Amino acid sequence: MSIYEKARAASITLASALRTQKDAALLAMASALESSAAAIIEANAADVEVARKSGTPESTVDRLLLTQARIGGMAQGLRDIAGLPDPVGEVVRGGTLANGLQVRQIRVPFGVVGIIYEARPNVTADAAGLTLKSGNAVLLRGSGSAARSNAAIVAALRSALAATGLPADAVQLVDSSTRDSVKELMRARGQVDVLIPRGGASLIRTVVEESSVPVIETGVGNCHIYVDESADLDMALRILLNAKVQRPSVCNAAESLLVHAAVADEFLPAAMKALADNGVTVNTNEEDFGTEFLSLEISLKIVDSLDDAIAHIRRYGSGHSEAIITSSVRAAARFTDAIDAAAVLVNASTRFVDGGELGFGAEIGISTQKLHARGPMGLPELTSTKYVITGDGHIRA
Amino acid sequence: MSIYEKARAASITLASALRTQKDAALLAMASALESSAAAIIEANAADVEVARKSGTPESTVDRLLLTQARIGGMAQGLRDIAGLPDPVGEVVRGGTLANGLQVRQIRVPFGVVGIIYEARPNVTADAAGLTLKSGNAVLLRGSGSAARSNAAIVAALRSALAATGLPADAVQLVDSSTRDSVKELMRARGQVDVLIPRGGASLIRTVVEESSVPVIETGVGNCHIYVDESADLDMALRILLNAKVQRPSVCNAAESLLVHAAVADEFLPAAMKALADNGVTVNTNEEDFGTEFLSLEISLKIVDSLDDAIAHIRRYGSGHSEAIITSSVRAAARFTDAIDAAAVLVNASTRFVDGGELGFGAEIGISTQKLHARGPMGLPELTSTKYVITGDGHIRA
Repeated sequence: MSIYEKARAASITLASALRTQKDAALLAMASALESSAAAIIEANAADVEVARKSGTPESTVDRLLLTQARIGGMAQGLRDIAGLPDPVGEVVRGGTLANGLQVRQIRVPFGVVGIIYEARPNVTADAAGLTLKSGNAVLLRGSGSAARSNAAIVAALRSALAATGLPADAVQLVDSSTRDSVKELMRARGQVDVLIPRGGASLIRTVVEESSVPVIETGVGNCHIYVDESADLDMALRILLNAKVQRPSVCNAAESLLVHAAVADEFLPAAMKALADNGVTVNTNEEDFGTEFLSLEISLKIVDSLDDAIAHIRRYGSGHSEAIITSSVRAAARFTDAIDAAAVLVNASTRFVDGGELGFGAEIGISTQKLHARGPMGLPELTSTKYVITGDGHIRA
Repeated sequence: MSIYEKARAASITLASALRTQKDAALLAMASALESSAAAIIEANAADVEVARKSGTPESTVDRLLLTQARIGGMAQGLRDIAGLPDPVGEVVRGGTLANGLQVRQIRVPFGVVGIIYEARPNVTADAAGLTLKSGNAVLLRGSGSAARSNAAIVAALRSALAATGLPADAVQLVDSSTRDSVKELMRARGQVDVLIPRGGASLIRTVVEESSVPVIETGVGNCHIYVDESADLDMALRILLNAKVQRPSVCNAAESLLVHAAVADEFLPAAMKALADNGVTVNTNEEDFGTEFLSLEISLKIVDSLDDAIAHIRRYGSGHSEAIITSSVRAAARFTDAIDAAAVLVNASTRFVDGGELGFGAEIGISTQKLHARGPMGLPELTSTKYVITGDGHIRA
């Protein structure tokens, strides 16, 4: 059987698995990661050595590197998923029609989910946990440069699945030694129900352009902080620094600052000093307005009006998270209404746009597309629905 | 401005339009169709003449043909849409987090929707009405063989929009004289937010394979009626005839009959006679098991067990609507659990899988894919959501 056929067979078993079975498997997977930590770290050390020898930037090596503590974090992540409600079987809506037909719309798993991601081995465990809990089989296509790490992690996860009586093929690693396996995944319509790319903008663009399997686009965030003329400027500064500096490498960090001209003279000197004190470089070139820096850089534009700010964000935003700092009810309403993004914030840091912060639990990514899911994608967003319609010999007139 | 830029500009106005404005426009559009009926019928007569001269089958010509009554039906459809609730602005979920942040997930329009469809001019008015009510601008790419009819309909709709103060560019007809316009629509990612093909299997397959714009797949229905060993056979016959004969040309009509071997001797003689009396031909060749006839034909297979029926439907079904006739609670539960389709019916005709029948109102199609929407797609399924998060200087710790 091909990996696709194995995944489909596993997905059929998983779709009817009870929550108790899935949670037991998740806890066993967590324990297996911990008891296999030595083997995983050894495999990872080989990946890290090759990466360093080939001159990989140290920030990339850091994302690849696994430690005892990081493996403990992956295990805890799986235990947290076990604690989340099971989305499968939830009745989304239901009722009895005038003719007595009973109609229920019920949450069901997608079936087979493909994840294409970069050299972050923690994604392997996170994605396996989220797809398992939502009743889906997963095909994991990680980076070739994390191949040994991923193989060791998946071996641990599969042995735990088998020991708890769920199909080991619920979690399969896809060959990462060739680009052909990515192409094959992208053309496996009917065999893979949804494909989720996780990684940089170019990876996501490639998958979106070339896949015939439905794709959920995640992650690119060129998030703006707009300081309105009516803003509390102390508040604006606190939010700006939090959004830019607290964790600059993530998609919900701020990348662009817009300041209303009426408060620029008052706000900017203090803001520029505070940004500089925190090591942030400020760019005012137009070619940087669309850049997701993911580092201690920010673009700056002074705008003449709220509408100019909205027009700027429409032009350069990536549809992730956009914030306004204002004390005007009308400005807040206009901004939240006009901005077309997964999340729009009023007087709050963009860093809150995160499944955990919003109380939704672990997430597979933050969707920046409009179809199916928008914003943090947790367990319910990894499901579809079906209608179950029950009659007693009903026929249509 | 290109049609895409015009559509985007119109979509921004529409996104904030009040329900009263949209409903007034829908009523004006209905009246405009009626007052333009003579011009529309004249344009349609030219399309019909060309179609007949080029040897188009009469069933296709019938779908193209417009009459006073059919135009009245299109107008009534628009009035019905005006009566449906506005999905835009609905708070899908919301609450206050422990830290005081107020979080609301709000329904918003997609923006620009593209519809690619065949020579059924009624779709032009239906699609324009549904997209307008859901706050979306629409790009309508109909069939070249209905070009004159569609142009006359769209002219009436646009004049009504302009008269009620909404942008006429909310409804635009795409050039149908060349295949290039379809290709362009399919590659207009970022300019078109979602593409919905409506038509036969080959049109849908082409769009799904070639589009980089997210697609919602609709329509192909190879629907099965499975007569279980415990079925009430009189009920089974009534449902079979209703599902096959009541309107054979639509996607929720039955195309395949599965009969449990234990009741085949008792059920089939009466069933075959009743089908024949209604003009239905029965096929038992394996190559017909996957066929959507859309006519008075049905495929037949005798199966040895419920599991065989499930396996057959998994192999040949199109994921639309599947029915079991049974008196066994356990068989009903197993069937509804195991069948992976938009709708699963127990003791009811597949013909009920229709937005109007289920009480959802008019539909743009029946989605057979798992992403975003599955089953009848009404107004809420033509929207996305965004999170609006309101704080008072909240920063992340």
